[in-house]
Amino acid sequence: MITSSFYQELQAFLDERISVSMDVRHAHGEGFSYHENTPPDVVVFPNTTEEVSAIVVICAKYGIPIVPFGAGTSIEGHVLALKGGVCIDLRNMNQVPEINREDMYVTVQAGVTRNQLDELLEGTGFFFPIGPGVNATLGGMASTRASGTNAVRYGTMKDNVLALTAVMPDGKIIKTGSKAKKSSAGYDLTRLLVGAEGTLGIITELTLKLHSEPETVYAAICAFPSVEAAVATAIKTIQKGVPIAKIELLDDAMMRAINRYSALSYPEVPTLFLEFQGTVAEVEGQIAKVEEYARFYGASDFLWEKDAANRKRLWRARTDAAPAAMALRPGAQLMSTDVCVPISRLAKCIVDTQRDIEETGIIAPILGHVGDGNFHLTILIDSEDKEEFNRAKALNERLVRRALAMGGTCTGEHGIGVGKLPYMALEHGDSLEVMRAIKLAIDPQNLMNPGKLLPER
Amino acid sequence: MITSSFYQELQAFLDERISVSMDVRHAHGEGFSYHENTPPDVVVFPNTTEEVSAIVVICAKYGIPIVPFGAGTSIEGHVLALKGGVCIDLRNMNQVPEINREDMYVTVQAGVTRNQLDELLEGTGFFFPIGPGVNATLGGMASTRASGTNAVRYGTMKDNVLALTAVMPDGKIIKTGSKAKKSSAGYDLTRLLVGAEGTLGIITELTLKLHSEPETVYAAICAFPSVEAAVATAIKTIQKGVPIAKIELLDDAMMRAINRYSALSYPEVPTLFLEFQGTVAEVEGQIAKVEEYARFYGASDFLWEKDAANRKRLWRARTDAAPAAMALRPGAQLMSTDVCVPISRLAKCIVDTQRDIEETGIIAPILGHVGDGNFHLTILIDSEDKEEFNRAKALNERLVRRALAMGGTCTGEHGIGVGKLPYMALEHGDSLEVMRAIKLAIDPQNLMNPGKLLPER
Repeated sequence: MITSSFYQELQAFLDERISVSMDVRHAHGEGFSYHENTPPDVVVFPNTTEEVSAIVVICAKYGIPIVPFGAGTSIEGHVLALKGGVCIDLRNMNQVPEINREDMYVTVQAGVTRNQLDELLEGTGFFFPIGPGVNATLGGMASTRASGTNAVRYGTMKDNVLALTAVMPDGKIIKTGSKAKKSSAGYDLTRLLVGAEGTLGIITELTLKLHSEPETVYAAICAFPSVEAAVATAIKTIQKGVPIAKIELLDDAMMRAINRYSALSYPEVPTLFLEFQGTVAEVEGQIAKVEEYARFYGASDFLWEKDAANRKRLWRARTDAAPAAMALRPGAQLMSTDVCVPISRLAKCIVDTQRDIEETGIIAPILGHVGDGNFHLTILIDSEDKEEFNRAKALNERLVRRALAMGGTCTGEHGIGVGKLPYMALEHGDSLEVMRAIKLAIDPQNLMNPGKLLPER
Repeated sequence: MITSSFYQELQAFLDERISVSMDVRHAHGEGFSYHENTPPDVVVFPNTTEEVSAIVVICAKYGIPIVPFGAGTSIEGHVLALKGGVCIDLRNMNQVPEINREDMYVTVQAGVTRNQLDELLEGTGFFFPIGPGVNATLGGMASTRASGTNAVRYGTMKDNVLALTAVMPDGKIIKTGSKAKKSSAGYDLTRLLVGAEGTLGIITELTLKLHSEPETVYAAICAFPSVEAAVATAIKTIQKGVPIAKIELLDDAMMRAINRYSALSYPEVPTLFLEFQGTVAEVEGQIAKVEEYARFYGASDFLWEKDAANRKRLWRARTDAAPAAMALRPGAQLMSTDVCVPISRLAKCIVDTQRDIEETGIIAPILGHVGDGNFHLTILIDSEDKEEFNRAKALNERLVRRALAMGGTCTGEHGIGVGKLPYMALEHGDSLEVMRAIKLAIDPQNLMNPGKLLPER
């Protein structure tokens, strides 16, 4: 536990940037999720990688657990201080040491947020494609291997991190990767730390790949007679090599939620929201193809817009999906599911799940990154109602088992945290022992975000 | 060392598929490289993952080192049996359990070769983009994190492996990744095994991403007044987001070698070989842009071809680069370098190296995957001439140090093997200790390809 000598050693160099206030601790005890607030004992606010290292060295000496904290937007309980200890809030580390246009990368401290990066890149001709639906930090996004709507074209954080600086459990500062675009020099520690959820070390700085801003962007939406028809259109689009930038599915329940939220009158049927990027000629070629596939599979309309304001209006429904779903049940708590399956199994996985939702009597509109086979149920629950909570958890569990049986994964982009721990053994089998061996080798004291990612025995 | 009881335990189930013949051992003691032949004591030819597991269990029991072997095309000494032991030749494992068109993947056993895969995919509408210049096995390509000319658009093996089956040092068979396109479920063991050079386990099966065959392919070549001008054109092309499929640089020495080899009359100046893929409209748009950039930087001509036969003829010079270089000095041995630097430093790195080559008096035409910042010196040496060999090694070493000083890597795609061991500490600093900790945790007996990738203390 926290002793006064431990506290004093930290305070000696952190000065005011350490807190045991209940408010501050509480604010660091949960993310955006249904998991119970579990505050740390102390919260610290380092400014530099070297300070993070000094904090880790002191924690290692006293055997104090460490939880790294970005924007607190995790939805699987990654920031819960399950064993107390120190929460390292990285939001002071929001500097951007380098933007390199020739080599097309940007180096950011881990506390830089998605929105901050977007603003910074405005007017440079470059953008960073990976973005979850919230203003997460880049350190948090790397740690959970986040992705979002652009992943179908640009990949996930795993594909867009060139190099990392990280503080390891003994306090050593390491640099992984390089500024070169590829390397075959040794174990890929970058990809090991991306998605490790802070259990192997703390990412303090990231070098991210930049992409050229497309000459033009068009948006489209398209209503389908069935989930199967919408998914078939997505599969065809990808099979034919159309480099579509976004292809999102909203189910009938989600379209109803949106119509109600924004007083719109979209057909309340499975609907694809699409985005195309490229030169005008490229984009118009892509749209012509996708419209052909959509009509082949029975789409009743195919609206597209090229003007920025109209595009934004068209996509508003998709952008507003989360608040629209939340508005179906004011005051309810959100439980978001996150399975990802091979795309050939996606329609069946969604349809079986819709039937399950109906039988369960739970409100759970569906939103899918359909090009990746990844979709979310926006389950709305009354957190006071234990019975309903359990029904929702059971629904989530059946969904995960369905996805695993289809050769999928329990989490496409949210991570394991504590919420998905029960499925790690089922998903990974003997691989889980290899993960445990790596964890034990790198963090023998089990101080780095303990209780996350790896189920305890 | 090998005992008769060890041998009998293997023979009990391998029957004829085990050999101690000096010819067979010798044939497994080297790759395509200047490293001295170092044969294993025994060579085995398993047919299945289960047999590989049984072999590993027996080796673990007797403490016998293991070297996995694919096509034997490594150029950094990956297959040298530095500590003797068993070479596991995986070429019998050349089955293709599944081609999945909807999900766009293929599952192959580790001994399937690049050419075999190409033939298999012919007529399916899909292709696998990663290919080194030789007919390597897919297992070997994954193990060295190989890439090749398509990497500028399609990435490397790290980006194109979805899932793996591997035999770990205790004989356990694990499956990493899944058939889903993305996952945030735990440590990325797939990316850890890709590039691990068989030092953590033996890859026996791979699930690879397939890509749609482009509607059309155009090729182009373009001569430049200087390396700087050629590289500036490549940088501009990538900065502007042109999805070029290949962009290869051959220096003046390489162009001279090609003219001599094939009785051609190309200008003997730095030359880019380009390939464009997409719809006709897309490709013609791309070519127009790249030609504009090339002319801006002083290119004197820009030839392009769309017809398959003409394209092949145009690219013949690039395809023949390796034999053309070898023909400069019949009977010479090849030492290929492999640095990769941030593309902004590439021109300087090449020009400084050309000066160095000239001062050294060594024959070393240059070939570069210029879109990735990766280039190779085709150093031709008389293997009997110790003094010349040392001069060549010194040239390679200066090149590596130059690349590392520029923020690059000692190997872009060939791997560490034994050839690049001296640079691991310099490139990775404290990260090397993390790699060692992982190796020790997973292979505590140090039986998996010992002496490769990690320098001994």
